[in-house]
This record gives sequence, C-alpha cells and structure tokens, in this order.
Amino acid sequence: MSDQMNGAESLVRTLVAGGVDVCFTNPGTSEMHFVAALDRVEGMECVLCLFEGVATGAADGWARMTERPASTLLHLGPGLANGLANLHNAKKAMTPIVNVVGEHTTTHLQYDAPLTSDIEGLARPMSAWVRTGRDSRSIAADGADAIAAAKTAPGGIATLILPADTAWGEGSGVAPMPLPPPRTKVDDVAIAATAAALAKGKETLFFVGTGAVREKSLAVAAAIAKKTGARLLGPTSVARTERGAGRVPLLRLPYPVDFARAVLADVKTIVLCGARDPVAFFGYPGKPSRLADPATTVMTLATAADDLEDALTRLADRLKAQGVAPDLAPLQRAPLPTGALTPEAAGAVIAHHLPEGAIVVSESITTGRNFHALTLTAAPHDWLEITGGSIGIGPPLALGAAVACRHRKVVNLQADGSAMYTVQALWSQARTRANVLTVIWSNRSYAILKMELANVGAANPGRKALDMLSLADPDLDWVALARGMGVDGRRVTTADEFAVAFRDGLKEAGPYLIEAVI
Amino acid sequence: MSDQMNGAESLVRTLVAGGVDVCFTNPGTSEMHFVAALDRVEGMECVLCLFEGVATGAADGWARMTERPASTLLHLGPGLANGLANLHNAKKAMTPIVNVVGEHTTTHLQYDAPLTSDIEGLARPMSAWVRTGRDSRSIAADGADAIAAAKTAPGGIATLILPADTAWGEGSGVAPMPLPPPRTKVDDVAIAATAAALAKGKETLFFVGTGAVREKSLAVAAAIAKKTGARLLGPTSVARTERGAGRVPLLRLPYPVDFARAVLADVKTIVLCGARDPVAFFGYPGKPSRLADPATTVMTLATAADDLEDALTRLADRLKAQGVAPDLAPLQRAPLPTGALTPEAAGAVIAHHLPEGAIVVSESITTGRNFHALTLTAAPHDWLEITGGSIGIGPPLALGAAVACRHRKVVNLQADGSAMYTVQALWSQARTRANVLTVIWSNRSYAILKMELANVGAANPGRKALDMLSLADPDLDWVALARGMGVDGRRVTTADEFAVAFRDGLKEAGPYLIEAVI
Repeated sequence: MSDQMNGAESLVRTLVAGGVDVCFTNPGTSEMHFVAALDRVEGMECVLCLFEGVATGAADGWARMTERPASTLLHLGPGLANGLANLHNAKKAMTPIVNVVGEHTTTHLQYDAPLTSDIEGLARPMSAWVRTGRDSRSIAADGADAIAAAKTAPGGIATLILPADTAWGEGSGVAPMPLPPPRTKVDDVAIAATAAALAKGKETLFFVGTGAVREKSLAVAAAIAKKTGARLLGPTSVARTERGAGRVPLLRLPYPVDFARAVLADVKTIVLCGARDPVAFFGYPGKPSRLADPATTVMTLATAADDLEDALTRLADRLKAQGVAPDLAPLQRAPLPTGALTPEAAGAVIAHHLPEGAIVVSESITTGRNFHALTLTAAPHDWLEITGGSIGIGPPLALGAAVACRHRKVVNLQADGSAMYTVQALWSQARTRANVLTVIWSNRSYAILKMELANVGAANPGRKALDMLSLADPDLDWVALARGMGVDGRRVTTADEFAVAFRDGLKEAGPYLIEAVI
Repeated sequence: MSDQMNGAESLVRTLVAGGVDVCFTNPGTSEMHFVAALDRVEGMECVLCLFEGVATGAADGWARMTERPASTLLHLGPGLANGLANLHNAKKAMTPIVNVVGEHTTTHLQYDAPLTSDIEGLARPMSAWVRTGRDSRSIAADGADAIAAAKTAPGGIATLILPADTAWGEGSGVAPMPLPPPRTKVDDVAIAATAAALAKGKETLFFVGTGAVREKSLAVAAAIAKKTGARLLGPTSVARTERGAGRVPLLRLPYPVDFARAVLADVKTIVLCGARDPVAFFGYPGKPSRLADPATTVMTLATAADDLEDALTRLADRLKAQGVAPDLAPLQRAPLPTGALTPEAAGAVIAHHLPEGAIVVSESITTGRNFHALTLTAAPHDWLEITGGSIGIGPPLALGAAVACRHRKVVNLQADGSAMYTVQALWSQARTRANVLTVIWSNRSYAILKMELANVGAANPGRKALDMLSLADPDLDWVALARGMGVDGRRVTTADEFAVAFRDGLKEAGPYLIEAVI
C-alpha cells in the first residue's frame, strides 16, 4: 500500500493513527493534495471554517475536551497569521494542537511569488515546535514528530509546514509514533517542603491550576486544604475546570489588581500546584506586576508539566489527608429572577437552568464577572475560559467542544465585542449542527476598556476616545448576523424573557443564539 | 507645551505633523493613553474597526489613494497577528503603513503575563522596519523614524511597538521629521539598453507595473510602445491602476499558468518597468515557476523603488516618443444585458453604470475574470486589487479608500468566500457612512479551489473534499449579514434585477450591499 500513497496521504494516515482524528480546515491551492487525501482516508473528521481564527480556536476547544491534539489545515503564511491569535490563547492554555500549514513547492520559493512569506518566522512565537517538511518520503515521520511534540507535557502547539511537493510526491506509508516523554514525577524534597508549608494552616495558600482543577485532583487538593487548614484558590482563568454540584467549589483570584492584592495580602506562603506565581494581567502606573506581597514565600509543589496527580496523592499521603472528605458544592438551583436583565439576573438564570454535563465557554469579562460564583452550585459542568487574553476565542472554542462532545450541551456566554472577532464560527456551528447555545451580552461597547481608561489614569475621556470604545452607531443586530450564517435566534431585554429564551434554547438540538441586551 | 505632554501625545502629534492623519484602530488596555491622546490632538481621523484585519486592510486602501502612510493602532501581539494577513497584502502592494502596536510596560514583560508574546518576531515577516520604543522621551522620534521608513521607496510597513510606560511617561514634544531618501534615478546605461531592446518592436514586451500604471506614466509608456512597436502589458494584479475612457487600455498577464505562458511564448525580451520578472502564483506538478520562456532575455528599466516617471521620460526622449499620442480607450458603455446573471452579464452592468471617478476594489478572481477587460472603456476610474493573495482584503480596502476619498464612489466587487474573512468591515463602513457599494458574488463556494483541485491533478474529488470547498449548507444570507452590521442591501438573481440594484446602489450616499446570486 505504501508505494501507492503520496506524501499527503501518508501524513493524514499518520495523524489518524496517532489519535489526531479531527481537522479544522481552511484550505487553499497549496493544500489541495492534503484535501484530496482526506477523501481517501477513513477516520478523520473535517470541519470547514470560513476564517482561520475559527479553525485554531475550535482545535483548542476540541483538544481541551478530548485531551488529544486536534489538527488544523491552514493556507501558507497569511492563513497561519489569521490563526495566530487563538493559537496564542491555546499556547497559554497549554493545549496540544498540530497545525499543518501549506507552503509553495520547494522549487517555487526562490521566486518570491505573491503568497510567499516567512512561515517559520510567523509560527515560532506561538509554537513549541516548528518544522518545514523536506520531502514526501519523510513528511509522515514529520507528522508523527509533530504529534509527539504537541503531546509533550504540559501540551503545546506543533506547526508542520507542508511544501506542496512533499504532499504530492511519493509517500512512505504510516510513520511509527514516537512516545512523548513521560510527565516528570515531583521529587520528595518538594513534597516535604510544601507539606510543611501547608501544615501551617491558613497563612498558606494552596494555589491550584491546569490539571489540578479536574474533579479528581481537585478533590485531593481540597482534602489537603481541609486537613491542614490552608486556603485553596485557583487562578483568575484556567483552560478547563470541572465544577458545580458534587465537586469542589473552587474560588478564583479576582482580575482587578487591587482586589487580587487584597486577597493575597495576609498570605505568608503560596504553594503552587499547576499554577504560576500570580501576576497582574497588565502593568499599571504605580502598581506592582506581582500580586503577592514581596514578603510572601512562593514554593512549587508541581508545575503544569509535572505529574500533578501523583504529586497530589503523595502530598496527601504525607499529610494523612487521604481519608478526609473534602467539602463539595451542594446542588442549589438559584431562583429565577424577574424584571431588569442585570448581569446578576442573567447569572441566576444560567445557574438555574444549566443542564448536567454542560460545557460552559465563558468569554464575558465584564458582564460575566459574577457568573463563575453563581454557578458553583449549579449542576455539574465543565468551564472553559480564555487564558491568553486574545479576544475572539468563545464561538470557536464552543464549536470545537461541541464537535468533541456530541451528546453534551455547550453554552457560550459571550461578550459582543469579542464575538465579532470570530463571528464566522456560527456558520461552522450551523454546518456541523453543533449543540451550542450562544448568549451574546449586547452591551454595545468594549465595556472593559471604559474601566481600563479610568484605570490608567486617563480621566474625562472625550468624544473621540469614547467612540473607540463603543460598539453603538450602528448597533449590531445579532439575530440578523446569526440568521445570515444559518443560526436561528432571538433578542431579549428582560430577565423574564431571558429565562424563557435560555430554557428554550437549551432544548434546541443544534446551534441557537440569544442576543441579551444588557 | 512639550513638558505637559506625555509620550503618547507627542507620538500622535508627530504622526499628524508627518502627514499621517488617519488611524484605523482596535485598541486595548495597553493603548489607552494613546486613545486618550487622540482626544487632545486635532487633525487625526480615527476609525474604529471591530477586527484588526479590517484596520490593516483599510490602512492599505487609504494609503493607496492618498499616497501617504496611514496608521493603525493594534493591541499587543495577538492584535498585530490578526492584522498580519492584510499587512502581507500591503507589503506586496508596497503600501506605506505605520503600525502602532501596544505592549506591556517595560517592567511588566519579565512576568510573562497572559498577553505577553514576541511582538517583534510577529512583526518582522511583514514589516520593512520594526522598533520597540525605549522610553517616553524618544517615542516621538521613533514615530518620525517609522514614517520615514514607511515612505522609503517603494513604500513599506513600519511597525512601532509602544510599551505602555513610553506612552504614559513624560514626552518630548513633536519630533523633527527625517526625510526619506529620494527615489533612485535610473542610470543612462539602463536607459540605452532598454531603448535598444524596445526598438526591436513586437518581439519585445514592455512590462509595466506599480507607479508606471498611473495615468500620466502609463501614457508615456504607451507612447514608447506605439513608437517602437513593442508590446505593452501589465502584471496579473497591481495595487492601483488609473484606467477607463481617455486612458491607456492596459491589458494584463492572465492568472492561469498555461494562458500566461502562451502570452509570453514568442517574446524575445522583456523590459521591466516597475514590474518583476513574471512568475506563477503557485507551483504546479510539471509546470515551471517562471512564466517567460527560459530563452527570453529579461532586462530592467526601473524597479518599483526607482524614479519611474523620470526613467520613462528619459526613455521616451531617447526613443523620440515624446510627441507620439498613445492610443487611449474610448468611452463605450456596454449595452445592458437581460436574462441570466452570468459573470459576463454582471461585468456588462458594471461597465455600463460605473460612474466617473469611481474607485473599484476587485476581489473576485473567478466571477470577476472578465470584469477587467469589460471595464477598459468604462468611465475613467481607479482599480485596486489584491496583490499578496491573502484573501479578505476587499471590504477593508474599500473602507479605507472611501475614508480617503469622501466624494468618490467606491465599488467593491467581492467574492463571497473572501468577504467572510473580514466581514466586520461593513460595520465600520456603516459607522463612517462610507460611500461604498459592495457587490457580493454569491456562488457559495471557494470556486477557485475547485479549479485548483483539478490543476494539481486531484481528479474526482469525493464528498469530504468537496465539502471543504463549498460554502453551501447553510447558504450565507448576505443581506441579513449586512443588516446585522447596519448596512442596507438586497438580493438579486437575474441580470435585469442586478442592473436595477446596481444603478440604485450607486445613488446611495452611504454603504449599500447587493448579494448577486451567481
């Protein structure tokens, strides 16, 4: 078989054999052999995206849910460039992704044709691994190396550049898959030191993120905190948290610098477990970047790349916390609100109706400030967030999560300004009949920037500055935008209307959109 | 005054003093001092874009029409990344642009906050000049250097990275403006050699592009061709051509490789004037990259960076072509078609109704194949095209051209697949009341890729491959999409309906959209 196979087909077969069985694509001419190979290979699900930022964000969502790398197919340097912003988010989320980026045939590059650019240069800032294929017989092995690189703990972006001749030339069959290195086991010294710090009780903060906020690990961390009296807290944003009723109700560090510093003010020691020494999102005049008090000791139990489960188990053993039952959140359905559609009312509706097993994709910093707390006692669910600050991740992330988990409801709580960046995701949601309920918080402004303009000390903004932060004139009509891409929806303006729309929207089998004017 | 001014204000004032008096913005927190400074400085027009690819494409359109650099304001690495695809196009068009990219405060960078990335690394592939500001007192001088770099012939992208503290710290007033180096005068040897080649008549091709296809220079080039009998031709795509009735009817090299090679087959010498040795857009199995016959001699009169006007004048003098009147296109209004809305019928309607002084932005490779020829005898107009092959330039380019030329009608002839990349441009067109008539060719596919799939030898594509090239399921509803962003429009399905809609649409004072189902 291998001698009838071109490079593209050997690469696609290698990806599927390596467990990379989804491809979010936006192909062009140079990728046509790869596209043709998709026809001949069973087992690769292909999702067309009408903009590359949708493809990369969807790959992130898929991989966060499956814990396997997703692949993308992108068209030369500009196609990759369009996908970089959500690759930045995926990098910060430590999501494994394999990008396949088309490139001119090797012999064509010297002519500096219109689409020629420095693809490796573009890929490097967001990628842990970059390689340009050399020939059609080694391209499958390159693909196998890319998968191994993406899977190397804590997970990262691997970008394989595919010159067209390496796709159309003779391939060499499915390449063997190198094993990624195993996660590092934490040494006993770190266990002993952090155990001693945690044993000091409430002056110590157990700061847990990434893999430590999945149900099982988080329960162990909470048992340790209960046993020792140490405080338990999560970072401001985490790629994926398992939470809700029956799970540990983990609070998170607030986003505003002053609030975060107040939370950390009386902490003597921070023990990091899959999280990093907390820093401010932005630097501000006269405010420190590190959020902990300079006198606070910071020690690491385990980094995101380490074997967190093992570290937590050994730490619990040492602290004799294994028999301790952590406090778990009860199921408490918030009562349905009526009247004005405030952020609090919206949060109550969501917490009330959220179905068991839902996947919440939250990209609503200002409107959604309280959603996280309000859903602590909702039905158990996954919570996915933006971790890299590059807005426009929500609708693609929801698409990817829905493709990965066909039988779960995805709820995308989405700021309007951010949604416009990757609005094309709605079309792919319609095409794939993705089980996504999108709620657009239509406040018609970059609301966070109005706060930030004050934060940086720019008082009394004038007309021109305010125009740069406002999405009014004209108002976006989200129901029309959704319909334009084949997604049905409705607009609501009160808490009562929102409660009905949210309940109805959850019953839809495919994508549905609610524009919540707030 | 200078001692009351912060770095941001000194930079904005320097930009305005340097003739950079438009800013296409998509700001974030780190750019808030720049935004605040925009309030305090007269003379900078600000246009908010809801996605950075719109901002960079609009800057390109503005600068192509004004021949001065436009500026953009982008939010850190991901904001720049979102703008890179259209910066790629602008780079290939040799358009002068000054990007101002926000960055964390200098002291914040060491903490690797969520939005931290390698901004210089991202900027370099598309920029001729990249600099990160060091302090608030030198940031205005950095801005002046950026303008000079953007203006350096043939024109390029200058990217200035603005750490937040260089914006909020004390500024130093308006910086003096360094003069960009003058364009190089072509030496007499090149004039003599190319004159001798052109004198050989029709075996020589005079291949003219960039600055040589503006009305005045093109008339000189056509006079030379008429005098010598040499053939005159333009590249497949050019950033901006002045054409239509009363101007030289310049034909262009066809896009398909076989057609292009046929056109060049009997050429013994190619004389380049602001154009490059023609190469294929993509490499294909068994086809050469260079389009000219290997035996053809290629010589350069002048590159795009040289003083083309001077070179053409001296060449005309030497060839005694100064008194020759070139053949100019007559005004011939095509008759209005009826019946099916074929690409030919659409082109006839456009050629018939195109108003004098229109700016045509063409991004419709398949449907628009014949539009270029059909409009040769339309009313005089400018024709702007995609030169870098990164799709999604049309609606932003039209926005920028309309902001630059308030009293001219902009007609954006736009493929549907490409339009989806930067669909957010319609909102900025609505907000600025941009005088843009957009015609979406709704063929519901990446039509060019269906051809390319065959071109690369991938015969009999299957369901999966075809799904990756089709925009159907669901069909995009362009009238709904436009309404969602505050732009009115209608859908047409026949030549008769299109003729009425196009005529009516031209009468609108602001943006209007026609979805032409074709």
